[in-house]
Amino acid sequence: MKILAVDTSGPYAGAALMEDGVVTHEIAACHGLTHSQTSLPMIEQALAAAGLSPADVDLFAAVTGPGSFTGVRIGVCEAKGLAHACGKKIVGVDALEALAVNAFGFPGVICPILDARRSQVYCAAFRFAGSGLPERVLPDEALPLSEFLTRLPQDETCLFLGDGLKAHFPAVREALGERAVSAPASMAYLRAASACVIAERRAGEAVEPMALEPLYLRAPQAERERSARLARGGGE
Amino acid sequence: MKILAVDTSGPYAGAALMEDGVVTHEIAACHGLTHSQTSLPMIEQALAAAGLSPADVDLFAAVTGPGSFTGVRIGVCEAKGLAHACGKKIVGVDALEALAVNAFGFPGVICPILDARRSQVYCAAFRFAGSGLPERVLPDEALPLSEFLTRLPQDETCLFLGDGLKAHFPAVREALGERAVSAPASMAYLRAASACVIAERRAGEAVEPMALEPLYLRAPQAERERSARLARGGGE
Repeated sequence: MKILAVDTSGPYAGAALMEDGVVTHEIAACHGLTHSQTSLPMIEQALAAAGLSPADVDLFAAVTGPGSFTGVRIGVCEAKGLAHACGKKIVGVDALEALAVNAFGFPGVICPILDARRSQVYCAAFRFAGSGLPERVLPDEALPLSEFLTRLPQDETCLFLGDGLKAHFPAVREALGERAVSAPASMAYLRAASACVIAERRAGEAVEPMALEPLYLRAPQAERERSARLARGGGE
Repeated sequence: MKILAVDTSGPYAGAALMEDGVVTHEIAACHGLTHSQTSLPMIEQALAAAGLSPADVDLFAAVTGPGSFTGVRIGVCEAKGLAHACGKKIVGVDALEALAVNAFGFPGVICPILDARRSQVYCAAFRFAGSGLPERVLPDEALPLSEFLTRLPQDETCLFLGDGLKAHFPAVREALGERAVSAPASMAYLRAASACVIAERRAGEAVEPMALEPLYLRAPQAERERSARLARGGGE
């Protein structure tokens, strides 16, 4: 089975190809939010290097968020478009779960944190209990960092990773002390290869492309502003 | 500090760029051994995407093996050439240690195995004791798989990864039973991003490009055949 995974949900754009359980191509790039320019060429590059066309892909996967609203839409729409054109199904991959997969086997709580602006992080917690996908400890939420930290299990080592690491790890360390561990640089960012691993395990949950929705944990800013305007009695 | 790491030591060709401790570009591709054609374009792509030229790189890194003799030479020579041209130093990265870095924090013994042909694997064992690089349990060697397995610590979970996984994991599982764990696909292959992590920690051990040598655990086949010919009293 050939799986193509796309991620543009955060600061990195990524694409990965898995063939019969082996990741044969992976790209991740973080050079400013130019995903609308860089993502499709990445996908094309991965397929071309493997001598494949989109029609050869059996299953598409897209990281559906949480993350940047605009970013999420780019990758999700590209993958939906490709899957629809090729008559194939698609699997939505949770950005926080994909990050947790990076840390396979870690003996503690895995805490992906993403910068959600407005003094919040997108966050969740996971734990590896066997050799499968990580198990959930806390659901995906948009929370102030301090609130997230109080919800974590006590007295356990917690591995932090994700694009919120750079801004927030000093505060995490201050709150949790030595039991807070920062992932090494090679493990800290969302990888489309990890999305492939999730898509392979969840192939049975694939949906028709039209049915795939982005995972927004709160309303986009434009909608929030519109709601606020309407609540104040303003017009459209 | 900007670090560029190159790997062509095995079935994957890879390149990664680290800027101030953050991996900003990573490529890994496994589509047959065409590294002499694919590796330099990968390096160029990583630098171009970051808006950099080779002269902007502060430190080069090359995976020196163990691995394919021809493969190792391609990446090592490219990186040496680039470093020499730019007047920068270079760090040699052990392929087996780079694989172990993939499994940061794993609570057991990490066992990278690479296909070494001639019924052998290139192998080593590591353990994570803190948040730094993995500590060595066994040195790099070329051994029959069964011999390697007898040298591993008993009664500990052992995580296997590397390109020897596909051919050898069934035999590993038969010998070690449930305590043998196979890395997920996204963790199983050598990543230039992991080589960046090692190069950053070992920047102080960087050498002049001329001084970097490939890590061959046994003589290349051509040399072995020549030695055998000479021993038989044959000529050159």
